[in-house]
Amino acid sequence: MRNIKMTIEYDGKRYQGWQRLGDSDKTIQGKIENIIHQMTGEKLEIVGSGRTDAGTHAKGQVANFKTESDLSLDDMLNFFHQYLPQDIVVTQLEEMPDRFHSRYNAKGKQYSYYVWNQRIPSAFYKNYSMHVPEKLDMKKVELACEKLKGTHDFRGFSALKKTKKSTTRTITELSVKQEGAILHFTFVGDGFLHKMVRIMMGTLLDVGTGKMSLEDIDQVFDTKIRSNAGDTVPAQGLFLDEVFY
Amino acid sequence: MRNIKMTIEYDGKRYQGWQRLGDSDKTIQGKIENIIHQMTGEKLEIVGSGRTDAGTHAKGQVANFKTESDLSLDDMLNFFHQYLPQDIVVTQLEEMPDRFHSRYNAKGKQYSYYVWNQRIPSAFYKNYSMHVPEKLDMKKVELACEKLKGTHDFRGFSALKKTKKSTTRTITELSVKQEGAILHFTFVGDGFLHKMVRIMMGTLLDVGTGKMSLEDIDQVFDTKIRSNAGDTVPAQGLFLDEVFY
Repeated sequence: MRNIKMTIEYDGKRYQGWQRLGDSDKTIQGKIENIIHQMTGEKLEIVGSGRTDAGTHAKGQVANFKTESDLSLDDMLNFFHQYLPQDIVVTQLEEMPDRFHSRYNAKGKQYSYYVWNQRIPSAFYKNYSMHVPEKLDMKKVELACEKLKGTHDFRGFSALKKTKKSTTRTITELSVKQEGAILHFTFVGDGFLHKMVRIMMGTLLDVGTGKMSLEDIDQVFDTKIRSNAGDTVPAQGLFLDEVFY
Repeated sequence: MRNIKMTIEYDGKRYQGWQRLGDSDKTIQGKIENIIHQMTGEKLEIVGSGRTDAGTHAKGQVANFKTESDLSLDDMLNFFHQYLPQDIVVTQLEEMPDRFHSRYNAKGKQYSYYVWNQRIPSAFYKNYSMHVPEKLDMKKVELACEKLKGTHDFRGFSALKKTKKSTTRTITELSVKQEGAILHFTFVGDGFLHKMVRIMMGTLLDVGTGKMSLEDIDQVFDTKIRSNAGDTVPAQGLFLDEVFY
């Protein structure tokens, strides 16, 4: 039995997210499993490093699958390029030891969030960023990034219902770079709770517009109450850049 | 009567090009004229600097229209942002003297063409570039750019039927820059014949793959025969960047 690791890039706009829902053809996982079925005849399940929400994009999602097929990796790559829709691209295939598991073995992830920060919207970035016409206090936004970094209980920054699992995570990098009208936020951490990046982003924007203060962030950490944090920003600005192993 | 110059950015993917065709709602010009009708009550025609083909994009198309409306430019800009589809954005409005004509007064134009030049396609640039998996001889491509520059009769590089008008144009800049997997070609000239940029691009790529030689370009200039030039590359890689006045 071979264990194959795939790296996947996708434009999430047309999809209901990563995770297959029943027989739905509207998910990335479902699309890829269908192509593997055509390619090898096997009805198998691929294991993703984690879900991405409807509309969220990926430059480096990782998944793995176990197959009896003896097709070369190169032939598989060509098959994927030929039959997957153009907005899902398998960028790399790699043979892995049997024990490799793309979710359990993930040591961390990097996400990007893009904000189009000027009054005039963009015809091109509309599906790949959030339009924020207001001027932001970038000094404060940077201080808020610093405050969110480190090891904290992020339950207040997540859309989780009650859970017994730990909601403590470590964020090692949270930075923002200005590139013309685009604000490019980068998040690196050992793991992210459900909607955590989008809720942290909404909080950073609220600090930037003055709707929230830096102290309000401590409040969210202290109370762990979701409604004390900022709104969940739209999915179309979010990219899963890379999964670290 | 006011004469208003508009600068327009659009993602051409969903449209049949710039020029209105009868009552079609599938053109950029048609969409904008409909919004002006809603905004001012006037059924007027806007004058574009030139057509763009179906699927071609623009970062700086220019048009002008004459109106009796006394709305401020700022109110007009807001109206456009609110009611135009998100893939058409009016980026600037300016009051002009009555004699200003966006087509007759245009002194030149700049176009970009983007090539995605690696084996693995891109999920994000598919609608904004042409995928060329073959390795190109960039030295030769650059020499071909030099050869196409200057003042020539470009009839062989156009999709024109018989015409009595001059087909001589001057290209002042034709360069290519590599940005990761992207080859960004820039074309600046005093005017471009129908499909001229896309046919020059097809020719440059044929030189890059070795299908055409540098001398074949002279042949196109000498014979003025369209079929001696390269193919017309797909519209989705083409952007009208700027119109000069």
